[in-house]
Amino acid sequence: MTAPPTAARRPVSRRGLLAGGALAAGGSLAGATAVTAARSDDPGVRPVAPVAGIGGAVEPFHGPRQAGVATEPQAHASFVAFTMRAGTDRAALGRMLRLLSDDAARLTQGRPALADTEPELGLLPARLTVTFGFGPGLYAAAGVDDRRPASVAPLPAFRVDRLQPRWSGGDLLLQICADDPVTVAHAQRVLVKDSRPFATVRWVQQGFRRGAGVEPGHTQRNLFGQLDGTANPRPGGPLETAVWVPDGPAWLRDGTTLVLRRISMNLESWDLLGHTDRELAVGRRLDTGAPLTGVAEHDEPDFAATGPDGLAAIPDFSHLTRARVGEDRLKILRRPYNYDGVPTADGAADSGLIFASYQADVARQFLPIQRRLAERDLLNEWTTPIGSAVFAIPPGCPDGGWIGQQLLG
Amino acid sequence: MTAPPTAARRPVSRRGLLAGGALAAGGSLAGATAVTAARSDDPGVRPVAPVAGIGGAVEPFHGPRQAGVATEPQAHASFVAFTMRAGTDRAALGRMLRLLSDDAARLTQGRPALADTEPELGLLPARLTVTFGFGPGLYAAAGVDDRRPASVAPLPAFRVDRLQPRWSGGDLLLQICADDPVTVAHAQRVLVKDSRPFATVRWVQQGFRRGAGVEPGHTQRNLFGQLDGTANPRPGGPLETAVWVPDGPAWLRDGTTLVLRRISMNLESWDLLGHTDRELAVGRRLDTGAPLTGVAEHDEPDFAATGPDGLAAIPDFSHLTRARVGEDRLKILRRPYNYDGVPTADGAADSGLIFASYQADVARQFLPIQRRLAERDLLNEWTTPIGSAVFAIPPGCPDGGWIGQQLLG
Repeated sequence: MTAPPTAARRPVSRRGLLAGGALAAGGSLAGATAVTAARSDDPGVRPVAPVAGIGGAVEPFHGPRQAGVATEPQAHASFVAFTMRAGTDRAALGRMLRLLSDDAARLTQGRPALADTEPELGLLPARLTVTFGFGPGLYAAAGVDDRRPASVAPLPAFRVDRLQPRWSGGDLLLQICADDPVTVAHAQRVLVKDSRPFATVRWVQQGFRRGAGVEPGHTQRNLFGQLDGTANPRPGGPLETAVWVPDGPAWLRDGTTLVLRRISMNLESWDLLGHTDRELAVGRRLDTGAPLTGVAEHDEPDFAATGPDGLAAIPDFSHLTRARVGEDRLKILRRPYNYDGVPTADGAADSGLIFASYQADVARQFLPIQRRLAERDLLNEWTTPIGSAVFAIPPGCPDGGWIGQQLLG
Repeated sequence: MTAPPTAARRPVSRRGLLAGGALAAGGSLAGATAVTAARSDDPGVRPVAPVAGIGGAVEPFHGPRQAGVATEPQAHASFVAFTMRAGTDRAALGRMLRLLSDDAARLTQGRPALADTEPELGLLPARLTVTFGFGPGLYAAAGVDDRRPASVAPLPAFRVDRLQPRWSGGDLLLQICADDPVTVAHAQRVLVKDSRPFATVRWVQQGFRRGAGVEPGHTQRNLFGQLDGTANPRPGGPLETAVWVPDGPAWLRDGTTLVLRRISMNLESWDLLGHTDRELAVGRRLDTGAPLTGVAEHDEPDFAATGPDGLAAIPDFSHLTRARVGEDRLKILRRPYNYDGVPTADGAADSGLIFASYQADVARQFLPIQRRLAERDLLNEWTTPIGSAVFAIPPGCPDGGWIGQQLLG
């Protein structure tokens, strides 16, 4: 072991104070030669001039609603779910959420976190958002289970489900999105480290969409090649109606709910399917995303139309038909990310979708669609839900406030 | 099981012919309801207008040298190593490399592969490059071990190594890089699928750098926050001298060699280290990357300078000092990618570097640097090599040719 030449002492960080002393006990810190944390206000860290373009772009953190929901989706996402440690009660949760809110407020604005040990990586936000979600166990830990929305619970079982615990559940979710993967990695590191005294990591799901600037203004494609998200409520009034909670308990007003499903996509069998069959299964053209009765992506489908063979032009069991919802108040906002793991030795892909659905009301919006799809959707042949979790997304917070204060403050 | 409404028959693809009939036996294809492959020349796939900007940017495939080495590094990389199946001899390798070269030639230019089953994902190259590397086992399989460069073999053991077979070795490497992660995923899928009759997947390493357009013109930062690559040979003559093989066996002229090391970076202990100590370990400022005796990243270090305490301003065992090489012909071209896996339940990061070093001669360039670093480099305290592989990067090929034809044709 080679000791570094010097070891400078530094003052106690605010993190240490906020963590209520639990920090020292919480981590599994390997032995090291110097024991003080580097701080972002070290004299050695000079401010850097603002960077133009993708790296310097900023999404707001403070406000009545959390960012990362109606926000134009960033290229990269890491969904991190935590399980509360025994003893993390309402007061500890409050400390944790104050700390994480402060981290998020800084990092999203291109400033290192207070106790940031890699401050050099905190200067390019690239539209970073950190969105907090409260899963069922959080209310129990805080002793406020009576304030848990009924729908924030495991979904009913669907016959298509093959759920794995390693991708399911979670007391607290941090959804970290940015147009730069280094920014996401750094934010994840800071937030996970600061969560240690309070919670353990339950699962992490990392996903991607087209890179920033690669195909601006286009709907996302999944790894089947399909456009995904065409039917989303339009920005403005429709999205407003579909996503944000207008009433109910005060602590959830201007919040929403998130259903996160990990959907394995069987490229092995999908790739054996002909082009026409794929389009019939989806109900849309693969190239343009137009319904099979239209020519452009956002054309209204004509479910009454028949083809030259006299059969329905859009099959009754196509994904488009089964997922179709007319009214904005019944729509969901899909904001999916692709995942692509390591193929098997024989080359079978480990690919799929981190399906993220936001809606004001899970029971009114998500469940009816999901029931129809689970009952009969041609795409079920090639897709399998392997993870599932539900979170309330509480409202945002003003400068000086913290996420969750309406519930836990 | 729901059968799709129709199943169209399609002609045999060129892939089937190229694979010499082995395709049907090679894969582990799950049962599916339709058995014909979708083809990129299906009438349903319309050509799409060229896309401006990051998505439409193209790197050449054909030429005397392979792309992906001197190419300005793209944001995303997947390194895929294969083990040859028993029976993949010189003739089969020729078929395989013809097929993969054809795939790469198309995909890198924004055209779907010949038998592309997701042609919609093949239209945005985003500077895609596919670089082929030949590991030790390839020469043996082809019966040309006498033509294997002596340095294309496992590296000598270093005392810092903790190598794992799951990240080491490989007969054939495909290095897939692009500025878009969907493009990388799709190219990986196509290439792995077309490799199946001939080879199994040994390992896959996926990595990232700053996104395209996030911080143009800057040196990469690793997850320790350090600038990484400052000492690279400058483009033009110096890079030419360092990287490309000027003589030796004809089949390797205009080729190079790649040493790929997976280096685990212990953020747990690094994060406990103070800012000053980090800079002394690296020998450079963390913010600007300047040597501790300079003010700008590319300033020449002054190893004779002392600090106010009378000690060397740049410690003798700093990474900068130990890795320092003066002559271009002794330099290596570093083109590293970060990796960031899933943290443990206790929040310990699984982070590190996919260290990719290109040089004309492993023995002359890479090994002396690596020996000095392994012997004594302050950074060894926080880094551990866990994977290692060496490949020859053969020259490029002209239009109509294929990678490796000089060796195997």
